[in-house]
Amino acid sequence: MRRGLVIGRFQPFHLGHLHLVENVLEECHELIIAIGSAQFNYIYTDPFTAGERVLMIHSALLKSGIAAERFYIIPIVNDENNSTWYAHLRSLVPEFHVLYTGNEFVKCLVRTAVDIQTPNFERKRTYNGTKIRNLISRELPWCHLVPSSVAILMEKMDGINRIRILSKVKKRNEPMVYPNVK
Amino acid sequence: MRRGLVIGRFQPFHLGHLHLVENVLEECHELIIAIGSAQFNYIYTDPFTAGERVLMIHSALLKSGIAAERFYIIPIVNDENNSTWYAHLRSLVPEFHVLYTGNEFVKCLVRTAVDIQTPNFERKRTYNGTKIRNLISRELPWCHLVPSSVAILMEKMDGINRIRILSKVKKRNEPMVYPNVK
Amino acid sequence: MRRGLVIGRFQPFHLGHLHLVENVLEECHELIIAIGSAQFNYIYTDPFTAGERVLMIHSALLKSGIAAERFYIIPIVNDENNSTWYAHLRSLVPEFHVLYTGNEFVKCLVRTAVDIQTPNFERKRTYNGTKIRNLISRELPWCHLVPSSVAILMEKMDGINRIRILSKVKKRNEPMVYPNVK
Amino acid sequence: MRRGLVIGRFQPFHLGHLHLVENVLEECHELIIAIGSAQFNYIYTDPFTAGERVLMIHSALLKSGIAAERFYIIPIVNDENNSTWYAHLRSLVPEFHVLYTGNEFVKCLVRTAVDIQTPNFERKRTYNGTKIRNLISRELPWCHLVPSSVAILMEKMDGINRIRILSKVKKRNEPMVYPNVK
Amino acid sequence: MRRGLVIGRFQPFHLGHLHLVENVLEECHELIIAIGSAQFNYIYTDPFTAGERVLMIHSALLKSGIAAERFYIIPIVNDENNSTWYAHLRSLVPEFHVLYTGNEFVKCLVRTAVDIQTPNFERKRTYNGTKIRNLISRELPWCHLVPSSVAILMEKMDGINRIRILSKVKKRNEPMVYPNVK
Amino acid sequence: MRRGLVIGRFQPFHLGHLHLVENVLEECHELIIAIGSAQFNYIYTDPFTAGERVLMIHSALLKSGIAAERFYIIPIVNDENNSTWYAHLRSLVPEFHVLYTGNEFVKCLVRTAVDIQTPNFERKRTYNGTKIRNLISRELPWCHLVPSSVAILMEKMDGINRIRILSKVKKRNEPMVYPNVK
Repeated sequence: MRRGLVIGRFQPFHLGHLHLVENVLEECHELIIAIGSAQFNYIYTDPFTAGERVLMIHSALLKSGIAAERFYIIPIVNDENNSTWYAHLRSLVPEFHVLYTGNEFVKCLVRTAVDIQTPNFERKRTYNGTKIRNLISRELPWCHLVPSSVAILMEKMDGINRIRILSKVKKRNEPMVYPNVK
Repeated sequence: MRRGLVIGRFQPFHLGHLHLVENVLEECHELIIAIGSAQFNYIYTDPFTAGERVLMIHSALLKSGIAAERFYIIPIVNDENNSTWYAHLRSLVPEFHVLYTGNEFVKCLVRTAVDIQTPNFERKRTYNGTKIRNLISRELPWCHLVPSSVAILMEKMDGINRIRILSKVKKRNEPMVYPNVK
Repeated sequence: MRRGLVIGRFQPFHLGHLHLVENVLEECHELIIAIGSAQFNYIYTDPFTAGERVLMIHSALLKSGIAAERFYIIPIVNDENNSTWYAHLRSLVPEFHVLYTGNEFVKCLVRTAVDIQTPNFERKRTYNGTKIRNLISRELPWCHLVPSSVAILMEKMDGINRIRILSKVKKRNEPMVYPNVK
Repeated sequence: MRRGLVIGRFQPFHLGHLHLVENVLEECHELIIAIGSAQFNYIYTDPFTAGERVLMIHSALLKSGIAAERFYIIPIVNDENNSTWYAHLRSLVPEFHVLYTGNEFVKCLVRTAVDIQTPNFERKRTYNGTKIRNLISRELPWCHLVPSSVAILMEKMDGINRIRILSKVKKRNEPMVYPNVK
Repeated sequence: MRRGLVIGRFQPFHLGHLHLVENVLEECHELIIAIGSAQFNYIYTDPFTAGERVLMIHSALLKSGIAAERFYIIPIVNDENNSTWYAHLRSLVPEFHVLYTGNEFVKCLVRTAVDIQTPNFERKRTYNGTKIRNLISRELPWCHLVPSSVAILMEKMDGINRIRILSKVKKRNEPMVYPNVK
Repeated sequence: MRRGLVIGRFQPFHLGHLHLVENVLEECHELIIAIGSAQFNYIYTDPFTAGERVLMIHSALLKSGIAAERFYIIPIVNDENNSTWYAHLRSLVPEFHVLYTGNEFVKCLVRTAVDIQTPNFERKRTYNGTKIRNLISRELPWCHLVPSSVAILMEKMDGINRIRILSKVKKRNEPMVYPNVK
């Protein structure tokens, strides 16, 4: 039995993420999807809560025919000490055998015997969270970039309106008393 | 569609928990299983990491024939301000409609329109985490109190030995420099 | 102009506290009332939120005829490093000239030139938070120990019922997944 | 009885803030003034401690003839999870019925039945904290923008000099070992 | 070159600790002395600040003739997640090759290839921090249990008086608003 | 006996730092070298862990002939409240009599009777951490700017490669799920 792990912020979960998950599941029996920056939400770069992201991913994977017993979706709060990040991650997820990451930096932080694979992240420029949030805030078409179940959930959560409000707040760019505005 | 939520420390996940989950799934389409005190581990009262508990629960539910698409298993780190605990919980899980709790105290903290149900927690004295950890530390039979897949995982994670070591550490009861010993 | 500071948890604000405030205001023009352990609430020893305690104190002082321009009521979250506690306190309140405390320990922690006075804390055994919470949980008379405006607010906030529930939770004395139970 | 809440960083408390408070007090019996980012100080954008800000506001309101029994001034430390910010705020202040905010973002975060009013924030460009700190750091006239009691306190606290030093530190813009420099 | 690590709270640094250091330095070229619970101080079980403990240890080792270039003394703040404690420790100290600990629990938490040795901790009942604090609080002889330079520093820091005050505070055993009292 | 304190991030420890230490040791018997931002590492502006920096400094001072009994090297985690920073620093280091800092800002934060000296920081433009990290990331000569023992340790810790990877990560400048990237 081989269990893999991918990590992302999934703001939102898009087709690039879905293809990545599908590819990894060809090589692994089970996959852990770790949702990073779990404590951030209602920020332009991090509009959705961890719980909303769990729901989006769960729904998209089921709709694309992936068997639910093969994945784990787990929110991970950040850790400001990079040196302890990997131990922190490991304490919150089931044991895994392969870490999928294309990031050389993450490779520096992995301190134990784990197989590291560079995932095949298709069309990174097309499927990209920053781009999707940008399209939404500028009222341009974006739905084709996410699984349709995610688009439906985003509407239902009033996420489109939320991203537009957060985009305006961000533009004003003043230090605020109100909650976190990155 | 009706989604319920139960919360527990699941140290370990035992047959009482499993029956609770089965009962709730007769009334709800989907169930969120929130793992409390997620940041604690390697403590006598909290021996397993959040990730180990995710694995135990996932495995026990599948083995007992529950469809994986019907449940979400999510670790929740504690919040020392009780008044914000419910908002904190809600930010980490998908939206839910029923909260299953027999605890009057939790009911005080729920501030929004949610249905609160008292679960039918069978034989609480028989199936009880404190009792199970106690049996393990005293080298008495305990396996009949947990799903068999959980017993197997606990052995595999060297959990039995771990509980016995933690029990001894606890008994010495001196302030320690080493990590957390409650 | 002489400004004093008293600090307490005020769970709840009782007649002993009120007399202390009245005595200190005979010696000082202004008084800062610092509410300690501000982050705790819905715990048997700390049943009320900081905001509820602000309201109780504000109301009791006005009802007893103390001019509102003479006092400041400020919540103070704890600091686990005792050595920095005094600097932490000073950053959250207006400058003060006298610290009223009968506690030798607090005197150890004060690192700057401030006048320390031992307050005249009348009938400490009669007016005592632990005793009041105990009377409430045992359903015995307690109203005569707090200012009448505080008794009214406690009823209105459903505080009596809350203390009784928290007392039962405390008695069960098991590690809980639900929020903080000291 | 109707109690309102306004929130600001008040770095410093200026005439725009004072007019806002006066306007709100025509509609409410009592007003809570919540001081945000309470943990920041000695930073160019946040030069004053929470305690210094309490003193400025208290003094300015009294000098402008507002009765002290009608307001509460309460420091609020930030919360990095925006979703729990409102619950966090509510745990630190007395119950309120109207939230005054012109910010659509804050409206997203309010989860309970509270009346939200857009305050009449006069001449926002004239009375503006960023502008005042900028005038001070450039040694230009600024006193006409704040209540005179605030100007006096700022001088007394050596606040003018402090803002100029912090402005120079900010300009050097290097990562620092010394405390927080945003 | 072989570098060892020992960890303790050193409240205070006593002759048992000194003998341990001397023994370890017969096997290692260099030794890291990690001071645990560094954030605690002015608590009966943790009376001294991390800085005071650094000074005691530095002074005792020099007085006993140990060459200063062979040791590192480093304060370590606690980490509530035991699973990340070892990574946290490693990020704060130079790389080491041997961990000296007699504690089976600590052995569970070590996740990398490091040599673990059980130190020869002589006369643990004689040389024991709990016992020393107890003797001091009861005004009984204690100086023979610590290096003489430590006894002198403890007097100079007013540590004897401090321990006695903290002992009384602890005995009153009520929840306090004042800083941390364990 | 006169003990001084200098504070820096030492990313890395360079010849400017070494000259500063040598100068200060002409005026003081002992010197505390406080390593700021101790919790940051594997970030482009903070590439080395606190433990790695302890080792660099220890090694450089010994190699330059400074007696090890004259210095203390102590990591200091940041404190977001600037007003408590000085109390926080003092709780982690032995008592000191002179603070060496050229920073007017730090002078604002010092609340107790301590002698503050402006150190003679030679050739600040030549010896500068930002510049050194920049040279390394651009693959230009940098070794002449640090003590040779530091250059050797940086190579040995794979620090050169690490800085280059972190520099690339920083340039991509997108919000990341992976650990901290400033």
